[in-house]
Amino acid sequence: MNQKVVDVYNGMVVKFKELIREHELDHNDYHALVNWLDELGKAGEIPLFMDVFFETHALQEMYKNVEGTEPTILGPFYLENAKEIPNKGAMPMREDEKGDVFFFSGTVTDVEGNPLANTKVDIWQADANGEYSGFAEGIPADNLRAVLFTDENGKFEVQTIVPGDYSIPTGGPTGKFLNWIDSHPFRPAHLHLLFKPQNGDNLISQVFFEGNQYLDNDVANGVRGTLITKLEKHDGAEKGLAMDYYTAHLDFKLRLQDQPVYS
Amino acid sequence: MNQKVVDVYNGMVVKFKELIREHELDHNDYHALVNWLDELGKAGEIPLFMDVFFETHALQEMYKNVEGTEPTILGPFYLENAKEIPNKGAMPMREDEKGDVFFFSGTVTDVEGNPLANTKVDIWQADANGEYSGFAEGIPADNLRAVLFTDENGKFEVQTIVPGDYSIPTGGPTGKFLNWIDSHPFRPAHLHLLFKPQNGDNLISQVFFEGNQYLDNDVANGVRGTLITKLEKHDGAEKGLAMDYYTAHLDFKLRLQDQPVYS
Ligand SMILES: [Fe+2]
Ligand SMILES: [Fe+2]
Repeated sequence: MNQKVVDVYNGMVVKFKELIREHELDHNDYHALVNWLDELGKAGEIPLFMDVFFETHALQEMYKNVEGTEPTILGPFYLENAKEIPNKGAMPMREDEKGDVFFFSGTVTDVEGNPLANTKVDIWQADANGEYSGFAEGIPADNLRAVLFTDENGKFEVQTIVPGDYSIPTGGPTGKFLNWIDSHPFRPAHLHLLFKPQNGDNLISQVFFEGNQYLDNDVANGVRGTLITKLEKHDGAEKGLAMDYYTAHLDFKLRLQDQPVYS
Repeated sequence: MNQKVVDVYNGMVVKFKELIREHELDHNDYHALVNWLDELGKAGEIPLFMDVFFETHALQEMYKNVEGTEPTILGPFYLENAKEIPNKGAMPMREDEKGDVFFFSGTVTDVEGNPLANTKVDIWQADANGEYSGFAEGIPADNLRAVLFTDENGKFEVQTIVPGDYSIPTGGPTGKFLNWIDSHPFRPAHLHLLFKPQNGDNLISQVFFEGNQYLDNDVANGVRGTLITKLEKHDGAEKGLAMDYYTAHLDFKLRLQDQPVYS
């Protein structure tokens, strides 16, 4: 027996009954819910739906009043075992990868600002069309996914392309839900980062960019003000590039005690 | 926009956050939940899981303090468009259908006891092995499913076989959940009945039989004391049958006002 499952299930039953009473749901409503959930499940959209419509709320509850860089959603597109690249190296990408050249850098410290050397940084992102390798058709398996390690000063940099805004799929049961709640399907362009320090807690977060039209209305509600940085445009000639390039930087503060803290 | 979906979704977010806090769930717990739900969905077991582990609680909340025969779960095995048979006729069954011959009768009235003539009665049940046509392999499509209508006194009778105890499937994600909560997979033998009166509310209910070992520990928690009746054994010679047969009877009181009543 798994006592935690028993307790959580019993708790869910209580919440479900409260929900039914508060919204005066009837047996037809129950069946409409079950039928739609069944469609969602058969379409393989449960991780998508949960990560877009519930994960951010879960995290805000779990990490309330906790110091350090704010976590945000992992989302359904993380894949383990991304290719390791050297610090300051380029993400695996296609020879003709679309999108503006982009150098993203960060400094990883503990909450007091002490650098965390040799921290594993897992980075993944959508391509310029807003599509993720391993999920969209026709993109090489390891595209725009990489692992690297911070240097002795906790610093890292990666060369990549500026990601596109991402649209969640609209053709399935999640798309039906978007219509019901009258929402567009977009997330603002972002990088995903998963930090695994030598000691202490993983940090799952994202980086967003000033000026994006979806910062205030991210369908997944995953933006945090402290995770927004600025894309700076540079003359390509400075780096001997044929075209302009962009840079951005953000600092990340990792907690070394266990998480979450329910206070 | 569907305001009800918006309201229920917002309500679910609040309940989900309460659940997270009350059980001190972390991000790993969240992912374990999502991964298991994804398995459940892809296996097509969401209606099964919901109807076994949530439907009875939903109904108890919806029909609290309401008069008339108690509803219980519809379950995942109802099929529309069952074959119509005459009152007192036999359910469609195989020539060599296993199980004891069984005559089930009922009287359908309003809550004051006035007979409800010409009420549509949809009846379905598992076979002697506990398997449902349309879901288990190798059973004719319309087997042990029928529709009939009450006579002018609100009475109906059907010839069938005594159903077997039913085991929910144990090989998939619902089976994993059974292990976690340390539960057997059985439901006590039962008939399903769905009444559609000429005026008034449908009643979705079931009939159970005294002495069954699962009455007190139905995996789906769907038994109601008022829905338990007695299987009476009779000498087959009385009806010119080669073997003994069984009878059972239950009265059903239908509400004529709209349901549910949230009081
Ligand atoms: Fe993403
Ligand atoms: Fe059943």
